[in-house]
Amino acid sequence: MDFTSEQRFDDGVLERSFALGEIPGILWTPASTSAPAPLILIGHPPLGLDKIYPRLVARARYYAAEFGFAAATIELPGSGVRPRWEASEQARADLRRVMQAGEPVGAEIVDALVLPLVEKAVPEWQTAMDALLALPEIGGPVGFEGGIISIGIRLAVVDPRIAAANLFAGSLVPGVMFEEAREVTIPLQVLLQWDDEGNERQEALNLYDAFGSKEKTLHANLGGHAGVPEFEVEAGARFFARHLK
Amino acid sequence: MDFTSEQRFDDGVLERSFALGEIPGILWTPASTSAPAPLILIGHPPLGLDKIYPRLVARARYYAAEFGFAAATIELPGSGVRPRWEASEQARADLRRVMQAGEPVGAEIVDALVLPLVEKAVPEWQTAMDALLALPEIGGPVGFEGGIISIGIRLAVVDPRIAAANLFAGSLVPGVMFEEAREVTIPLQVLLQWDDEGNERQEALNLYDAFGSKEKTLHANLGGHAGVPEFEVEAGARFFARHLK
Repeated sequence: MDFTSEQRFDDGVLERSFALGEIPGILWTPASTSAPAPLILIGHPPLGLDKIYPRLVARARYYAAEFGFAAATIELPGSGVRPRWEASEQARADLRRVMQAGEPVGAEIVDALVLPLVEKAVPEWQTAMDALLALPEIGGPVGFEGGIISIGIRLAVVDPRIAAANLFAGSLVPGVMFEEAREVTIPLQVLLQWDDEGNERQEALNLYDAFGSKEKTLHANLGGHAGVPEFEVEAGARFFARHLK
Repeated sequence: MDFTSEQRFDDGVLERSFALGEIPGILWTPASTSAPAPLILIGHPPLGLDKIYPRLVARARYYAAEFGFAAATIELPGSGVRPRWEASEQARADLRRVMQAGEPVGAEIVDALVLPLVEKAVPEWQTAMDALLALPEIGGPVGFEGGIISIGIRLAVVDPRIAAANLFAGSLVPGVMFEEAREVTIPLQVLLQWDDEGNERQEALNLYDAFGSKEKTLHANLGGHAGVPEFEVEAGARFFARHLK
């Protein structure tokens, strides 16, 4: 893990860009690091880190400044500055085509879009965890939050370092991930946008129902895909504060 | 409003029992009352105040000590020390009979059980608000929370002093209240127990859907009717802190 640049904000939070081999990422740590900080991995949709940086930095600084968490993210395979791969580009093009035509998004497209991404991204998040947890200022346990719920599900199943997850039930979810959700046992908070234009409400409720966790809370809010209320950032932080400290 | 007894707890919170005509009630206020405190009205199921006092006092003290809220409750008509009335006793007996027989609870029983209670209880809560808001240590705005969601719905519709409500979608809800829910416009938090044995999950989701409020958040948790997780007390207080201050 090579740090490539850093800046310190007014609130004392230190932001460091890093490269993990070919994977770019960003780490935010609190001003005071008297004890190793718990780590939150911030997931995101495949739009490129540059594009979603404003959203990411706002919540990461809040976590670090208000709760003393470290927060980190890495670029998804095939997004931002990372090389595209053909199957993924094809699946994205197929998705755009059926959505523009107003057709339902078939299971094959969802599988082709999401499953290879899960296969590639999950080991990368694990490599990032290895490197981040080796830093003296970061301790366990680890929380995962945010976009591409299938990545969160797989990580929660395969990596025991993930102690809690705050997931967004707003992505296209392959049928096989509903089965995998039954194997998740860590505490969960699940966000649902009640009028999500890209997501079947009943499917999201079924996914919440499927999770095997004893503690799982659904936070549904009125509004579309991008309309998650600001107060859910605090609710997410408090959820992690209960489970990561 | 006559205060009938008082005690002060270790955390400085003052508890006062009162009588409002024939209606007994309890008021909790914070230790420091430099500014008038916002008021939370704590609703509850019709089991009698004496019986549910331990639950009520725990959350009321938390609200007062941690958030500086005043909190108050009154006995429901027909419960606790208050006189029974025949139609209500008949409806309760009918409910017990069909539930013991494992039969579905028909709409007539729900209506007979809940609607007269709403008609009687809502003006009483309003009278209590008149008296409580006249105390110098209590200011507006007012939040309503807790059991018998139909009472919360009606109060939110008819009384503009109610600025926010944290409701429990776990009661038997008359069909007509779904219509009334559309008229509710204040910010809402709605609790749902996912495996509530006395409540149809889909009906609770329909009720959440029906509310006319622009800000409405559903908090669903795994477990039965009485299994609301402890952390929802804090989530409720933070919801009120956003809207009552």
